[in-house]
Amino acid sequence: MNGAESLVHTLLKSGVDTCFANPGTSEMHFVAALDRIPGMRCVLGLQENIVTGMADGYWRMSEKPAATLLHCGPGLANGLANLHNARRARSGIVNIVGDQATYHRPLDAQLTADTEGWARPVSGWVRTAMDAKRVGADAAVAVQAARTAPGQIATLILPADTAWNEGGEPAEALPVPPATTPDPHAVKTAARVLREKKNVLILLGGIGLRGEAQALAWRAAQATGQRVLAEMSNARVERGRGRLQLERVPYPVDMAIESLKWVEHLILVNAKAPVGFFAYPGKPSRHYPETAEVHVLSRYEEDGIAALQALVEELGAPEAAMPDPGPRPDPARGAPTPEGLARTLAALMPEGSIVADESVSFGRGFYKETHAAPPHDWLQITGGAIGCGMPLATGAAIGAGGQRRVINLQADGSAMYTLQSLWTQAREKLPVTTIILSNRKYQILIGEYQNVGANPGPTAMSMLDLGNPDLDWLRLAGGMGVEAARATTLEQCGDLLAQSCAQNAPFLIELVI
Amino acid sequence: MNGAESLVHTLLKSGVDTCFANPGTSEMHFVAALDRIPGMRCVLGLQENIVTGMADGYWRMSEKPAATLLHCGPGLANGLANLHNARRARSGIVNIVGDQATYHRPLDAQLTADTEGWARPVSGWVRTAMDAKRVGADAAVAVQAARTAPGQIATLILPADTAWNEGGEPAEALPVPPATTPDPHAVKTAARVLREKKNVLILLGGIGLRGEAQALAWRAAQATGQRVLAEMSNARVERGRGRLQLERVPYPVDMAIESLKWVEHLILVNAKAPVGFFAYPGKPSRHYPETAEVHVLSRYEEDGIAALQALVEELGAPEAAMPDPGPRPDPARGAPTPEGLARTLAALMPEGSIVADESVSFGRGFYKETHAAPPHDWLQITGGAIGCGMPLATGAAIGAGGQRRVINLQADGSAMYTLQSLWTQAREKLPVTTIILSNRKYQILIGEYQNVGANPGPTAMSMLDLGNPDLDWLRLAGGMGVEAARATTLEQCGDLLAQSCAQNAPFLIELVI
Repeated sequence: MNGAESLVHTLLKSGVDTCFANPGTSEMHFVAALDRIPGMRCVLGLQENIVTGMADGYWRMSEKPAATLLHCGPGLANGLANLHNARRARSGIVNIVGDQATYHRPLDAQLTADTEGWARPVSGWVRTAMDAKRVGADAAVAVQAARTAPGQIATLILPADTAWNEGGEPAEALPVPPATTPDPHAVKTAARVLREKKNVLILLGGIGLRGEAQALAWRAAQATGQRVLAEMSNARVERGRGRLQLERVPYPVDMAIESLKWVEHLILVNAKAPVGFFAYPGKPSRHYPETAEVHVLSRYEEDGIAALQALVEELGAPEAAMPDPGPRPDPARGAPTPEGLARTLAALMPEGSIVADESVSFGRGFYKETHAAPPHDWLQITGGAIGCGMPLATGAAIGAGGQRRVINLQADGSAMYTLQSLWTQAREKLPVTTIILSNRKYQILIGEYQNVGANPGPTAMSMLDLGNPDLDWLRLAGGMGVEAARATTLEQCGDLLAQSCAQNAPFLIELVI
Repeated sequence: MNGAESLVHTLLKSGVDTCFANPGTSEMHFVAALDRIPGMRCVLGLQENIVTGMADGYWRMSEKPAATLLHCGPGLANGLANLHNARRARSGIVNIVGDQATYHRPLDAQLTADTEGWARPVSGWVRTAMDAKRVGADAAVAVQAARTAPGQIATLILPADTAWNEGGEPAEALPVPPATTPDPHAVKTAARVLREKKNVLILLGGIGLRGEAQALAWRAAQATGQRVLAEMSNARVERGRGRLQLERVPYPVDMAIESLKWVEHLILVNAKAPVGFFAYPGKPSRHYPETAEVHVLSRYEEDGIAALQALVEELGAPEAAMPDPGPRPDPARGAPTPEGLARTLAALMPEGSIVADESVSFGRGFYKETHAAPPHDWLQITGGAIGCGMPLATGAAIGAGGQRRVINLQADGSAMYTLQSLWTQAREKLPVTTIILSNRKYQILIGEYQNVGANPGPTAMSMLDLGNPDLDWLRLAGGMGVEAARATTLEQCGDLLAQSCAQNAPFLIELVI
């Protein structure tokens, strides 16, 4: 058995049965091993940022890591942006990267690059295999690292000779350390602050955004008259009827500061105290008041649900009914607005839908109007690296077993980063409806430019405008095997959305906004 | 004057007047400065690997650096693969990357990443600006570094506050150190080896592949009865009538070893002794005989043309007429073959064409059949990171002033990495004819798989086949504003090529092979 075969056996023993891939020559022995050993579903992405973004979406919905298979050096580099997003989502990924044979590397052949150096900033764990005999053991540790709470990227670099040499030994799955239990002192402190102080905000992130956690946070807040909010960018929020009508910290700096100015105490549940996505001249970097006290109920690696359970018990907080979001809205009509699109979505999405949201500037109003939708999951771009939404939607569809409708709310400029995702959706016949929010410009940047103090002139617009020529999303989608149609009104968009949800296939709606 | 304005003024003073860009929020003050200060041509790429690949092509044809403008962290990461190729081409690029404000970085906002760490492996020079007052001086050093022979990537990281703070001071252009003059000892050694030894190969790379250098190398070889060859992957070769009928070291390992097995002495002119692109089990990593002696006539940073001139003088080698390549071929007919396509190209390409070659497996026979074409330049993928050809063609068209026809011989799998290039070609109305070599598979990898010892089974083919669904290149090109047509025979391809060369616009031919 060679090293590559021991790797595949070990991944399967460790419960990793899906591999998102774009291999090259140095990975051919691994490809051959995948071919010979049954049990791994291999999904091709036509560029590595599709591959890594799919692995992120897969984890978010399945809560288990997929493997990636990336080509040495530049292949990894192509996938770094979505690994960055995955790191910020705290997704677990077994990130397998081929490399030059150990003895070939010193010769500095054309494709030789600093694979390990590029991997390190996005990885919680990095190891370069150096011996076929140890590849199995290395892989078992990689899976363990990827699954260690809250989830992290474990990069295993596989020089070609460690794949092709004989002597591979499959390793058994290693135990996954359970999430750290909450600190009783932190629970007592949070309870005391909630009971005794005014203007306390419970800020939820990560696992704290699952429905169970929301219900517990709501009980704690109701019992003490305090408030609950979600972080700005979240890997996965369980939403819709039966969940909390949770709002997020807003993205625009002035709105964020305004929304948090009342806070005297901040209790963090698997969350981070809010800071700006970017700095702006003369504006604070931290978005909560300087005088606010920050209390950590649970850190990322801790079990936030257990922490909230302990908090509720410490408070003796009674059961509290979730607030009623009101009736399910009707689909909206007329010219597309963010609120209208959100109502259409709330009206028409099937129960159990997954929303992959890379709507950028257009999407800031979506949240509020979808509280009364059926239960669904909402996935966001977590690291700000655009080009996340389409691969995320693709991977989420696979992670959810292909049985749940994915609706990708997708800004056009960001879509052009990873449009190749559509081809994988067509090949795998995934139930993904992409709604391209087609404004034919980098609208968020035009807004940022205006913040700088002027309207963009011709040179600036040459870098901010996506017209000239206009992108034709119907042809782009059709070129990759995805059926598509254009909508200029919300009723057209709603009809196309409903129609696409009835088919077990991908579909793209270009919504002209 | 703010830091960003001092940066733009300094770039213009230093002769940098073209900026390939995809900015984000942290670069908005730089965008505003470009807007206010006339003189910089800004060219938008819809993903950063387009941006960096264009800057590479621009340098190869113009021999001066362009600036890039990339977004912090993940934006840079998206462009690393083509920076890797540019590094291997030894192209000069002033690689400007925005970043979080200096005081915001420690807060680890979502988009914060290890910008400097990612830049370092591809850069010859890296600096993070820390003060608006110093940005001008930093930029002048960056341009000097980019232009230092043979050319290198100089990465200047620009935290947002160093762009927006006042106190910027434009800096004057710094002198560019001339390429190091050749070592007289190396010249004497090379002359002695050429005169006294048998089986000597002069291997040309870099500047040694310009027409002038070829003529000198040919004189030296003719005077001593020795041979001349080019490296396998070259940034730019001047070719066609009046140039040497130069062959390259072959890519496949067995062919490379066979072609070099006679070599007893290797004289390197801005080249590297040949090693395999990859290692293969049981095959040597070095492709020249172990017993061969290696002599360096000129290193990368040295003036190879001056070194060859000195060599010719040392040898007292007489003028030598370039061998006649024979008559210009007629266009080929019938089913597409590599040789037939190359003959069609040689028959129809306008004088002064630029060939951007990312033909991968199909293109290995192109070189031999194009010696009798009119004078032209041939650009290759130098670092092996696929997705180079289309941005390279785009940037080369701009670097050549928009007056020369660029013909991009483009493998389909690689094309899907950076297809967004077509949009920039349409927007800038560039004279680029893309010939997609559409075999609907990663053919090179299927060959590599078979080398591993078997035919690929269904799982392997799920990662190596690009069918299911077939990519429709006419729709993909049309979706980005580029006219396109399909050819299934060489005469159709020839007709479309000739027609496209008569228009000052991009065109795409899907050649079904």
